[in-house]
Amino acid sequence: MELKNNLQTKTGWEIIEKSFDPAQIVTTGSNFMIGNGYLGYRGTFENWGAEEFVACIVTDTWDQAEGSRWSELCNVPNGLFTELRLEGEPCSLFSGTLHEYHHSLNLRYGINTRKIRWESEGGKSAALESRKFASKDNPHLLVQEFRFRALQDGKYTLRTGLDGEVWSLNGEHFRSCIPAGHGADLLSLDLKTTELGTGIAVVSGCLFKGITPRSNVMVQEDRGLYRDFQFELRTGEEVVLEKVVSITHDNEVPNPLEIAKQEVANALRSGFEALLHAHQAHWDAFWELSDIQVGGNMEAQLLTRFNLYQAFIATPTHANLPVGARGLSCQVYQGAAFWDQETYNLPMFVFSHLEVARRLVAYRYDTLDGARRKANRLGYYGAFYAWTSGKTGDELFPDFFFTDVLSGRPIRNHFNCWQIHISPDVAYGIWLYYQATDDWDFMLEQGAEVLFEIAQFLVSRVHFKMDRQRYEIIRVLGPDEYHENVDNNAYTNYLSRFALQKACQVFDQMAGTHPDRLKALLSALGLNAASREAWEDIATRIYLPKPDPETKVIEQFDGYFGLEDIRPDQLRKRLIDPEEYWGWPNGIAVHTQVLKQADVIQLLAMLDIFPNEVLTANYEYYEPRTEHGSSLSPSVHALVASRAGHQEEAYRYFMESASIDLYNASKKVMSGGSFLGGIHTAAAGGVWLIIVKGFAGFVLTEKGVGFSPALPKAWKELRFKLRVKGCLLSILLDGGIRIESAQENPNRIFIELPGTSGWLEPGGSFQG
Amino acid sequence: MELKNNLQTKTGWEIIEKSFDPAQIVTTGSNFMIGNGYLGYRGTFENWGAEEFVACIVTDTWDQAEGSRWSELCNVPNGLFTELRLEGEPCSLFSGTLHEYHHSLNLRYGINTRKIRWESEGGKSAALESRKFASKDNPHLLVQEFRFRALQDGKYTLRTGLDGEVWSLNGEHFRSCIPAGHGADLLSLDLKTTELGTGIAVVSGCLFKGITPRSNVMVQEDRGLYRDFQFELRTGEEVVLEKVVSITHDNEVPNPLEIAKQEVANALRSGFEALLHAHQAHWDAFWELSDIQVGGNMEAQLLTRFNLYQAFIATPTHANLPVGARGLSCQVYQGAAFWDQETYNLPMFVFSHLEVARRLVAYRYDTLDGARRKANRLGYYGAFYAWTSGKTGDELFPDFFFTDVLSGRPIRNHFNCWQIHISPDVAYGIWLYYQATDDWDFMLEQGAEVLFEIAQFLVSRVHFKMDRQRYEIIRVLGPDEYHENVDNNAYTNYLSRFALQKACQVFDQMAGTHPDRLKALLSALGLNAASREAWEDIATRIYLPKPDPETKVIEQFDGYFGLEDIRPDQLRKRLIDPEEYWGWPNGIAVHTQVLKQADVIQLLAMLDIFPNEVLTANYEYYEPRTEHGSSLSPSVHALVASRAGHQEEAYRYFMESASIDLYNASKKVMSGGSFLGGIHTAAAGGVWLIIVKGFAGFVLTEKGVGFSPALPKAWKELRFKLRVKGCLLSILLDGGIRIESAQENPNRIFIELPGTSGWLEPGGSFQG
Repeated sequence: MELKNNLQTKTGWEIIEKSFDPAQIVTTGSNFMIGNGYLGYRGTFENWGAEEFVACIVTDTWDQAEGSRWSELCNVPNGLFTELRLEGEPCSLFSGTLHEYHHSLNLRYGINTRKIRWESEGGKSAALESRKFASKDNPHLLVQEFRFRALQDGKYTLRTGLDGEVWSLNGEHFRSCIPAGHGADLLSLDLKTTELGTGIAVVSGCLFKGITPRSNVMVQEDRGLYRDFQFELRTGEEVVLEKVVSITHDNEVPNPLEIAKQEVANALRSGFEALLHAHQAHWDAFWELSDIQVGGNMEAQLLTRFNLYQAFIATPTHANLPVGARGLSCQVYQGAAFWDQETYNLPMFVFSHLEVARRLVAYRYDTLDGARRKANRLGYYGAFYAWTSGKTGDELFPDFFFTDVLSGRPIRNHFNCWQIHISPDVAYGIWLYYQATDDWDFMLEQGAEVLFEIAQFLVSRVHFKMDRQRYEIIRVLGPDEYHENVDNNAYTNYLSRFALQKACQVFDQMAGTHPDRLKALLSALGLNAASREAWEDIATRIYLPKPDPETKVIEQFDGYFGLEDIRPDQLRKRLIDPEEYWGWPNGIAVHTQVLKQADVIQLLAMLDIFPNEVLTANYEYYEPRTEHGSSLSPSVHALVASRAGHQEEAYRYFMESASIDLYNASKKVMSGGSFLGGIHTAAAGGVWLIIVKGFAGFVLTEKGVGFSPALPKAWKELRFKLRVKGCLLSILLDGGIRIESAQENPNRIFIELPGTSGWLEPGGSFQG
Repeated sequence: MELKNNLQTKTGWEIIEKSFDPAQIVTTGSNFMIGNGYLGYRGTFENWGAEEFVACIVTDTWDQAEGSRWSELCNVPNGLFTELRLEGEPCSLFSGTLHEYHHSLNLRYGINTRKIRWESEGGKSAALESRKFASKDNPHLLVQEFRFRALQDGKYTLRTGLDGEVWSLNGEHFRSCIPAGHGADLLSLDLKTTELGTGIAVVSGCLFKGITPRSNVMVQEDRGLYRDFQFELRTGEEVVLEKVVSITHDNEVPNPLEIAKQEVANALRSGFEALLHAHQAHWDAFWELSDIQVGGNMEAQLLTRFNLYQAFIATPTHANLPVGARGLSCQVYQGAAFWDQETYNLPMFVFSHLEVARRLVAYRYDTLDGARRKANRLGYYGAFYAWTSGKTGDELFPDFFFTDVLSGRPIRNHFNCWQIHISPDVAYGIWLYYQATDDWDFMLEQGAEVLFEIAQFLVSRVHFKMDRQRYEIIRVLGPDEYHENVDNNAYTNYLSRFALQKACQVFDQMAGTHPDRLKALLSALGLNAASREAWEDIATRIYLPKPDPETKVIEQFDGYFGLEDIRPDQLRKRLIDPEEYWGWPNGIAVHTQVLKQADVIQLLAMLDIFPNEVLTANYEYYEPRTEHGSSLSPSVHALVASRAGHQEEAYRYFMESASIDLYNASKKVMSGGSFLGGIHTAAAGGVWLIIVKGFAGFVLTEKGVGFSPALPKAWKELRFKLRVKGCLLSILLDGGIRIESAQENPNRIFIELPGTSGWLEPGGSFQG
């Protein structure tokens, strides 16, 4: 079917670019990317370079270029560079004549395919076809098949190799890039990063099937290392190149260059089809649990799968590493985790692929020391997680982020020191994982320490109002970043209480089951029983802005209702420059009720403690005041709108959130020559939240799980699976709701549906 | 002797303008002004108008013009307008030829005198002479004598009357201005203010002595109401006009127009000399107690008296009204009190003219309800005094004060809500008055209520850090306004503790002496014994940034030492526009240690609780980092430098502070056509502080009074008087120090000098 933005799909499992549009190079590069959680490779043409934003972003390669204040993941040399020349004229989308164009991404298996028929200005033609994937079986590997067929007799040159002329958002990351041996058809680059001297190896190897080249020449140009293969072909003859690239670095393996060479040699021996086969098995396993089937609406089906695909390839499954806010689609946001990781990306894995979820929560454990250092540096103790968190968990967010376009002065934003909800958010993620899995071992080994240290941070951060006998949290930013320096932000206070309660709960449970481990942990952290009393005292006496008795609206922070009440569209007219930042310190939204993004709505979407009338009242109050300056905002609006009984708006926000990247609906992807594009990973994870928590109304209850379905009108049925409390459940919404428990499930599970509830036995089904 | 800035003095009791300089009209108008605490009349020429910033600013006439956000005192019609015409040509400093020019201000009696000899373009000449004063005997009255002598035979016209064409900083203040009867040589204007409809009457009357006019004509022009008196004079003949103006308003008297008419009629009957005589008696009484005699340095003597003069005429002595930050010299700063009133202006009166000091502290009592309303509006209770305080004590300071010159956007400064030290400052003033006077009746009637309500405000404002078991004060501005939004500002925390301690002390003393009154007061305020416990608890456990054990430096606020350490001159180079505001939110000083004005130094100048080594260390640390963006800053620097052993710097800062107005050393008096001039009243009061607290080292001790003299090298001797604990003391510094107790003093007083101490009996003297 036809989609928007020059796209179509046939089965709901692929996106197809209908024609080549140079204006969409940035967007298409992101949407058609391949990846495996270890690396992301943008959906670019084989012979493109830095100007077309070719990129291969690799996890765990954080480095800071000289003179830059940004520590970001490296964009490594392009190992898949391949260019065909017809009688010396390079086959290019920007010259000659394009007679056929096909570009597609197979979401089922993460395969990017291109086919073109091209005629040179000299009148020579060829048909080209390439397929490539980033192996889920061995995540170091990029695998490519490149074919071309001569449409006239003539001389053809195929240049293939490593293009080291990469772009980088913030400066040069390689202090050296040494060609490192190229025997036996291998080309290698041995790189050292500028700041930390991290060794990175990029090794490519290739072989031809069928027709082999007459000769080949090694070429070293600028930062490129290539082989030029010469062919003399007759009309109809086809050349098939299989190419494998391995990218390794010494943060992960001891001897990256050696290992990459071995892997390339091995992979070449296996061949494209065998590599593909092994790769596909992993994707089968992913979709088996994670596919969401939307009946009766192909566009929604495709958008859903596209987002699940992007969420998955953005998520490291090979190591305990963060999910970047733009995944591995580019260097924007430094490949670092924000609060999105726990609130938008973790949930889908918690209820499907536990081993992936386990890595994400373990990442927060691994970065505890960074969080401790941050707390300490700012005069607190315990764990104050980084707003922008890379390898070590030290704060990567700079003091000066935005620039005041009216003055040219950098603005001191305080995301890195006042947006304290990041720590309770991490606690929320820890608890979500534990609650869904009952993984008490994790809690003992890692979770408890994280929860205790977050609780300690909160102890060091809260203030007690003696006269009101309540704790307050002063000078914060909530999720709504247009309002810095506010007090008693509803989201922050509720989540902080949640974090403290869970710390107490785990403390007590450990005291019961593992008193010695508790004692050891407390001793290691310098805590004692009085610490727990302090947590409970704060959890009990913290001020929580309650729903107004009449209106049911929760005030976002102290004094919010006293701000100017204006709507975003009206407010926008006050901009002097369209590029102005709306927030701190002097932006147009600061003294108004206009929000950047959901704040109270975010709270309502996360903590299932408010009755529906509160959801409805707050949705109706805050939605018109929200500018959605963040891509995180629409999905929780969809979720809460669905629960609040606003079905049409819920669906509109679903479509907005799900299509933000595919339909290029984001604010912008380029600004003044700077790349701002990339995949909005949180919005991708948000699609799962909308469907499962919103449309299906899934909640964890005290006894088991509950659903309150609200199937969008446009959909006939909805099917998905959940793994919860050790059980695999299949859910079908088709007006009614039906839940099946897999035969192999270890135990029964309690189901709560509107108007009915009961136990669901393994192999059985429950209907509502 | 010759002074700077085109000035000279003969006896140290007058300033003389050597020649007419049109570029100095704004400055001279302020420096040569006359006034009496009820009204201020600028030192302008008799026939000048709005363009030359003629002004008569009257206390207690606050009004807000339509469309303005500023409530300011009214500039009323100029009752002294007088213009001589020679054969129809007006005698003007801007045309014709000036043959002689004399302009002086007698500081002893507040008399402004001008003499000129002028020749018209038509060749006619006259000698003019005028004297005027603002009566201290009846403060409604302006009294003028205007003489001219014909230097040729000819026709002379003298126009005199009321010029209603006044300028106003922020819009039109008179909705009506009605000529109201002009029988019997009187001219009257009956005005109503725009916002509040306050009735103001300006009535003038005149009579000629000796030669009387041939005829006179009433003229009503625009907003002016005049009489033109015609003379046919022969060479050498002199005309003497005596003119009296009464300005009344119905915030003070029931029937302003009637009263003004009566007063003018009575005054005309008395005549100039009698009015002057009565007026001078009040000035004699002022100088009797307040003169400071500087031996051996005429310039310093003159500067000292000039500032004492300006401080006195700025201070309302007829009613409980505020001392404006620019006194009554113009409308800048709205004629409103700031914290300067207690910290810079009150002290000189507390130790001399108790009845004036009593009015100033009573003003804070009278405005308690405004302070309560402010506290309430901002979510507190008790008394949060206005940063800018007019009649009612409601906050006059607007939310948006400065404008960002780079963007043109108004800046939300927080002087009106975060600069909470204003309340402890008021408590400091109350206590200073009580401490110097032992006026327990005042404390019972007014002081206790103010102190208790300030303590209550602090209870509602402080936060307790449970983990550190200490109170903190979060999100304030200290005196240094470049750093908004800081925590635990040393000045604020120490002064808050001081205020709480004094509240407890008064509570306890009342419990002993007047338990019933205490009970009644507590009951009226809704307080009880637990309130006092709360005050004491905060006073005991509030966090006070202590002098560093090694460096002895007190950190100005949490994290101050971590800010960029740069000097003001270096920092200045970062300005994009010279008009940029340096402070909140994004000014060049915000993230540096550069201060606008003394902050810790201010604390050291006010609370005599730190040893001298702390004064020295802090002076040496902070002084190089201070930009002195406030006129308040140099005087406390002089004071502390003197005590810290930096004699030369102390004297340099004394001269800077004392000459800021007279030598036109202020930042600027006009900007883009806007008037920014006027007398820096706090700096005027600061001169007393420098000399008495700095050079003489005067302190109140537990047993009595102490002095630690540090006479400036340039001075031979210094004499002044102090009234303290009911005793009048005469102090002489001349290398040594000698204190005499007046014969009529009711009791002995304990004196502490360096190396000696003892009781000083009435009529005796004490030497050190």
